[in-house]
Amino acid sequence: MKLWGGRFEKETDERAAEFLHSFRFDIRLAEQDLRGSIAHARMLGRQGIIGEEESARLVEGLERIREEVRSGDPRFDPTSEDIHSAVETRLREIVGEVAGKLHTARSRNDQVVTDLRLWLREQGEETARAIRALQSALVGQAERHVETVLPGFTHLQPAQPVVLAHHLLAYFWMLERDHGRLRDALERMNLSPLGSGAMAGTGFPIDREFTAQELGFAAPTPNSMDAVADRDFVVEYMAFAALCVVHLSRLAQEITMWAAPQFGFVTLDDAYSTGSSIMPQKKNPDVAELTRGKTGRVIGHLTGTLAVLKGLPLTYNSDLQEDKEALFDTVDTLKLALHVFEGMVRTATFNRERMAAAAGRGFTTATDVADDLARRGVPFRQAHEIVGRMVAHCEQNNKALEDLTSGELREFWPDFPEEYRLNTPLESAASRNSYGGTAPERVREQLEAARRKL
Amino acid sequence: MKLWGGRFEKETDERAAEFLHSFRFDIRLAEQDLRGSIAHARMLGRQGIIGEEESARLVEGLERIREEVRSGDPRFDPTSEDIHSAVETRLREIVGEVAGKLHTARSRNDQVVTDLRLWLREQGEETARAIRALQSALVGQAERHVETVLPGFTHLQPAQPVVLAHHLLAYFWMLERDHGRLRDALERMNLSPLGSGAMAGTGFPIDREFTAQELGFAAPTPNSMDAVADRDFVVEYMAFAALCVVHLSRLAQEITMWAAPQFGFVTLDDAYSTGSSIMPQKKNPDVAELTRGKTGRVIGHLTGTLAVLKGLPLTYNSDLQEDKEALFDTVDTLKLALHVFEGMVRTATFNRERMAAAAGRGFTTATDVADDLARRGVPFRQAHEIVGRMVAHCEQNNKALEDLTSGELREFWPDFPEEYRLNTPLESAASRNSYGGTAPERVREQLEAARRKL
Amino acid sequence: MKLWGGRFEKETDERAAEFLHSFRFDIRLAEQDLRGSIAHARMLGRQGIIGEEESARLVEGLERIREEVRSGDPRFDPTSEDIHSAVETRLREIVGEVAGKLHTARSRNDQVVTDLRLWLREQGEETARAIRALQSALVGQAERHVETVLPGFTHLQPAQPVVLAHHLLAYFWMLERDHGRLRDALERMNLSPLGSGAMAGTGFPIDREFTAQELGFAAPTPNSMDAVADRDFVVEYMAFAALCVVHLSRLAQEITMWAAPQFGFVTLDDAYSTGSSIMPQKKNPDVAELTRGKTGRVIGHLTGTLAVLKGLPLTYNSDLQEDKEALFDTVDTLKLALHVFEGMVRTATFNRERMAAAAGRGFTTATDVADDLARRGVPFRQAHEIVGRMVAHCEQNNKALEDLTSGELREFWPDFPEEYRLNTPLESAASRNSYGGTAPERVREQLEAARRKL
Amino acid sequence: MKLWGGRFEKETDERAAEFLHSFRFDIRLAEQDLRGSIAHARMLGRQGIIGEEESARLVEGLERIREEVRSGDPRFDPTSEDIHSAVETRLREIVGEVAGKLHTARSRNDQVVTDLRLWLREQGEETARAIRALQSALVGQAERHVETVLPGFTHLQPAQPVVLAHHLLAYFWMLERDHGRLRDALERMNLSPLGSGAMAGTGFPIDREFTAQELGFAAPTPNSMDAVADRDFVVEYMAFAALCVVHLSRLAQEITMWAAPQFGFVTLDDAYSTGSSIMPQKKNPDVAELTRGKTGRVIGHLTGTLAVLKGLPLTYNSDLQEDKEALFDTVDTLKLALHVFEGMVRTATFNRERMAAAAGRGFTTATDVADDLARRGVPFRQAHEIVGRMVAHCEQNNKALEDLTSGELREFWPDFPEEYRLNTPLESAASRNSYGGTAPERVREQLEAARRKL
Repeated sequence: MKLWGGRFEKETDERAAEFLHSFRFDIRLAEQDLRGSIAHARMLGRQGIIGEEESARLVEGLERIREEVRSGDPRFDPTSEDIHSAVETRLREIVGEVAGKLHTARSRNDQVVTDLRLWLREQGEETARAIRALQSALVGQAERHVETVLPGFTHLQPAQPVVLAHHLLAYFWMLERDHGRLRDALERMNLSPLGSGAMAGTGFPIDREFTAQELGFAAPTPNSMDAVADRDFVVEYMAFAALCVVHLSRLAQEITMWAAPQFGFVTLDDAYSTGSSIMPQKKNPDVAELTRGKTGRVIGHLTGTLAVLKGLPLTYNSDLQEDKEALFDTVDTLKLALHVFEGMVRTATFNRERMAAAAGRGFTTATDVADDLARRGVPFRQAHEIVGRMVAHCEQNNKALEDLTSGELREFWPDFPEEYRLNTPLESAASRNSYGGTAPERVREQLEAARRKL
Repeated sequence: MKLWGGRFEKETDERAAEFLHSFRFDIRLAEQDLRGSIAHARMLGRQGIIGEEESARLVEGLERIREEVRSGDPRFDPTSEDIHSAVETRLREIVGEVAGKLHTARSRNDQVVTDLRLWLREQGEETARAIRALQSALVGQAERHVETVLPGFTHLQPAQPVVLAHHLLAYFWMLERDHGRLRDALERMNLSPLGSGAMAGTGFPIDREFTAQELGFAAPTPNSMDAVADRDFVVEYMAFAALCVVHLSRLAQEITMWAAPQFGFVTLDDAYSTGSSIMPQKKNPDVAELTRGKTGRVIGHLTGTLAVLKGLPLTYNSDLQEDKEALFDTVDTLKLALHVFEGMVRTATFNRERMAAAAGRGFTTATDVADDLARRGVPFRQAHEIVGRMVAHCEQNNKALEDLTSGELREFWPDFPEEYRLNTPLESAASRNSYGGTAPERVREQLEAARRKL
Repeated sequence: MKLWGGRFEKETDERAAEFLHSFRFDIRLAEQDLRGSIAHARMLGRQGIIGEEESARLVEGLERIREEVRSGDPRFDPTSEDIHSAVETRLREIVGEVAGKLHTARSRNDQVVTDLRLWLREQGEETARAIRALQSALVGQAERHVETVLPGFTHLQPAQPVVLAHHLLAYFWMLERDHGRLRDALERMNLSPLGSGAMAGTGFPIDREFTAQELGFAAPTPNSMDAVADRDFVVEYMAFAALCVVHLSRLAQEITMWAAPQFGFVTLDDAYSTGSSIMPQKKNPDVAELTRGKTGRVIGHLTGTLAVLKGLPLTYNSDLQEDKEALFDTVDTLKLALHVFEGMVRTATFNRERMAAAAGRGFTTATDVADDLARRGVPFRQAHEIVGRMVAHCEQNNKALEDLTSGELREFWPDFPEEYRLNTPLESAASRNSYGGTAPERVREQLEAARRKL
Repeated sequence: MKLWGGRFEKETDERAAEFLHSFRFDIRLAEQDLRGSIAHARMLGRQGIIGEEESARLVEGLERIREEVRSGDPRFDPTSEDIHSAVETRLREIVGEVAGKLHTARSRNDQVVTDLRLWLREQGEETARAIRALQSALVGQAERHVETVLPGFTHLQPAQPVVLAHHLLAYFWMLERDHGRLRDALERMNLSPLGSGAMAGTGFPIDREFTAQELGFAAPTPNSMDAVADRDFVVEYMAFAALCVVHLSRLAQEITMWAAPQFGFVTLDDAYSTGSSIMPQKKNPDVAELTRGKTGRVIGHLTGTLAVLKGLPLTYNSDLQEDKEALFDTVDTLKLALHVFEGMVRTATFNRERMAAAAGRGFTTATDVADDLARRGVPFRQAHEIVGRMVAHCEQNNKALEDLTSGELREFWPDFPEEYRLNTPLESAASRNSYGGTAPERVREQLEAARRKL
């Protein structure tokens, strides 16, 4: 059933219909569309805009459709233009002509954006839970590795020893910010556009407070033109999602490298790895790689949606139909990525020995020596220069810093004490005990703070 | 059937499988996958890598699967990891254990990229045809409107009168460049990666020239590592597509404005318009708007895919699996947009009177006066200044330039001739007869050139 | 002065230096860098890490450099690698060797991100003020146009009459959400990374609370690795900015169309318009157009920065150097765009007559008739159909709805009353008095609510 | 000097001027602007549109300005709106009032796009040379490493041994495709828009063929409206550039990993590395990292520019002013990145021993065993399964494949020959001698083919 045939003489071209119809994807909003319609129908009756009994019949019919949907047996006309007309057509089959009264005092313009807000609000809550679960998995692993040392990297060059818990908690805090951004977005989107009509409001004596409350919104939106033209909430979620999945991609990059035998820092569970059709030895960190790849997809959706909105005049334009598929895919991708990361992180085995061995290579305690010289009064710049020359000397002679004799040391700085002992990697990490630093005592505090957030 | 179980002890996690499996979308490559496998199986037999009879059985089995696919009755295991394993599993059902020999001397890495090139080559040809059809529709309309004047705009302000054919042909030339870019891309992608193996080539005595020829490729790719890691052809198509749909979006923007009663330049056919569920009078240029919107989507896919490839080390990484859905959607979107634009343009009615009336408003012939003064020896800068003041005077007094008496004219420039007649819009357009200009005589030449391209 | 020469034997290649050095753009952070260094130097003295007197000399030297910068006479070595080494070199010139002690217990990694947060915090506050100013300009215009009717558009087709104040306030609310997002971002970024060192913290007994307080931060960051690798605050500002400028671009699109003579709804002040070098009559809405264009730039910066961060392993990588130019340009572009929009909006003249005339055209009160039939008991769907046919009839006969006689009306619906009078555009607008609707009484409430936000 | 003051009463607002003026960046087009103006002035004289002597004076004046520019002493008014008005103002100072005749029969709209095409054509040629230079550096290194084995990776897991030359040449072919795309773009852009006027052509008897030839263009553009509104050539260069720098980013990622001690495959020259201000041992692959980062920037420019063009109606709109800065930065970034990569690649030292050692680890020859079983008649799928189990056994027992005794081997497959010897990595590579494969003999052919391209 078309909702708008009156003034038209010709049918829509078949290909144009294929191009224009959104039913194949907006059917996903069926539950929300019905929920919104039920609230609207109730309000219409309550306000006397339609008869009480008419209202009751509409509600009953809509509830029956909802059951059909929930039981996996929706009976929509597959050639419907969109979910709204599909529902109305089905409603007419059930309740007859009174179905035509449901659309009193509303438009698809306020309806669709109400549906989408309801949907995204639910999905946002699920996303929040998925973030929390991944944060828990990180905390779980961190608890086991407060004293596991590995090289901390800058520029992918060994920099200073750190403990694995500290490294993993860095991701905890990224996700904590994501969670904050998501919560802010969810709060900002929680207003009801229902009752904005096509864009100017309506002359029927509707009660927007009532429908807002029925649907769990904090309040109705203040401007009807803005309400039907606004997709800020879609973009805000997408921007949150893009940054969140970028965080996953960073961890993914590390997992991928750490799983390579050159690093050998982590062994992934078989359940989160795949093999090769030709190379029998392969065990690939597919989940990590694919998430890194899907980050491009999510960035693309954000970019594309901003480009869609750019330069759109008020109020509703069909360009806005482009919000849904990109949003659906963004939500699905992020949620699933969070889920599989949770499993991958939870089941991963970190290889303490490989990490410890690596932590001792690459002159990672050179800063300790420079700091020590600084503590002994050498200006830091000069201390840096001295140790730099020591490292260059060691590299040329294929030595580690700890191989240098005190005689050799004094060639670089005459006041080196007789018995100069370098820090072990764990000592080195433990020495960095400033607030937020990698010393295990500090990391335990950090873990405590992290646990409090969960 | 998993193609790689040997070294694994645990099954893939269910959610991870959902995340990783590509069968739900790469089934779209079934035809190409089969075509590639048939060529490969033939070659294996021809080169004596497998027995002639084995080769024949494989080919026969693959052809049967192809028939199942073509007849709309594919019998693939829906839980397959990807199309490649789906085909091999089905093949095993048909031909038995010999199916296991098909994968000799190849890998999914070279297989999937062969499939994708085959697919995109076909789709590229279809895209080219769709461009040509839209160009024809533009030429068709242009032929009817060589002397239809309308205001040419710069900054969306009336600038100078032009003829509609000239305006429409501007889009012809944009599409002509798109066509050129597409042809270049199709030529560049027409190399066969088959036989690159997992990434290093193979030790079996394969004949890559043979499979390349069988599949209609110009030659085999020269470097096996590049071959399996390369998705340039995907990006090149997407970049072409993004610019092409940007061109459509520009026309879409004009159609949208021209269909508004404030312009009233065009009336779209009902078959390419839609209505409103609440406002009975509405007739919306939905096809144009939605195409403008979909431009964001295509830009997003390009952006996302570039981001996917950024920083990927050699050779195959699972990130590359992200090429397909974005590409499929780009191709589908562009092709369908071209098709519906063809219909929309072909069936549109341009309103000569509204255009002509508009062409005379907004001082569009002011440049003619300035040019005329320049021809009479006034330096152009000064002529511009004089006419600028005339326009300001007219605006303040709510007059058109043609309303000025010769007395008034001479207040701006003393040497205006007694009887000074301004150009009509059509005269004005006709006077701009430089090569590529809007004079009907020139536009007829241009139409001729355009027709030669088709 | 290079801060890291010790282990190197060769100079950086000249072109590589050109490529790598950031001084030409990060000099913009001089003020923040000095502020951070002063806080750090004070803390070093307070904690006894360096002598009290040394600390005082460093602070004094840094304050002198700050004065040089503020007075527009910075004395930095133009070949400096970055602002940090430029400052240290200059400091050495002023205070001598003790300058080398300033870098004790910190790294450029925590230093640069501290600088950037300080800078963005200030710029964010300026941005917030610019948003408020534009909101005020919108409210100012809205107050003058509570009863100015114009056609509200959907799909750029006239939909229903609205009042201009309502239309303008739609932008007020968009900016209000932008303001909220900005405030959230500013709060989230207000943590001090100073003291995170290269990435592991430091063994010196620093006081991060002290420097955080000195610099006005709410607290120190909780994880040193995250702190130096995190650019979320940059992305969050950019995402806010992209959406904000998208809002401007929507208004820009309307201004551009409204300034065209076909609409004629607005006349821009000369101070916010430009002319043509060739067409003497032109007056172009350049500010609006350019802002619409610059929206692409800001979207591009966001996209690019997300792509930069994608797949970056911990902790600092030189890729992060790419944050600054994109951020600087985003901030500059948005702030300037907000400023010029404020002026353009404030000085614009809206043409009541043109708007009123347009509001009556295009069957904008057709919904009123349908609603009226619905009130008289006709199911809305059927009412919609009836009025749709009335409109089609009028279009074919070149009539307005108000031209139909009661006899004609009754051919569409037999129960039309004898004397059926259609709403005028203002009556139509006034009738849409639901909460958030366009009725002047409601718009006055809305204005009140808007004013309370400012 | 403003080129359009006539009809305006008020000055442009100061901030709006700052926003609108392009002189600070389009001064970069001075050389091209002058070249175009000289050709135009000559043509005006030749066609008798202005006097021969006037033409000569204009040309002389323009040539003098060109000398000022070339000698680094341009005398432009720094408050100019753009380069075009700057040149005209300066010309007036030199030749007097006749300067006003230069703008006869052209507009800034055709002028600016002519300038930009001239500029990009030159820059494109320079880019092509920079690509060639990097290709040469890759070939140079490849020649030294035809028999240097390293592990080829898929999924960043060791897959099969390859030779370094093969790996490096993969980048050669990527760049070869980039070069092809650039050449196609350069050819497509080589048309002269000069003479298209504001957008409709001109009534003056100009000779567009003449100016096209003078400026080295293949022909004039065929449609004046398209000509002034078209920025396809900018987008096409940007799309080429984005993919090209993505290729660099892939190599950058490998260099970054290979320079980490965990890989240790490459040692970069000091001239292309940097150190740390705090960690004396650091030697960072900064050039590679920064290029990887700058890839985001270039992707962002492409995205942004497509978004700028989306939905722009014909013809010139100020949005188009946004083409220049993004293009300039794209060209500069790509050229400089290519230059520094050339140096970095040319001077890099590849560590044969580390690579060889790594090539033998990770069961990289497992495919060889499976292939061997397949050659002995085992269906490949089964062979894969057998070797998969062998690998799992080895991993659990911490063995390499070559450690398995024939007794052990026969537990996996009873027909293993008594003396079963596994391939060494180099033998393994040498065995993959299919066309395009990694066998040194094939790689030598490939090197030959590569050299022929240079």
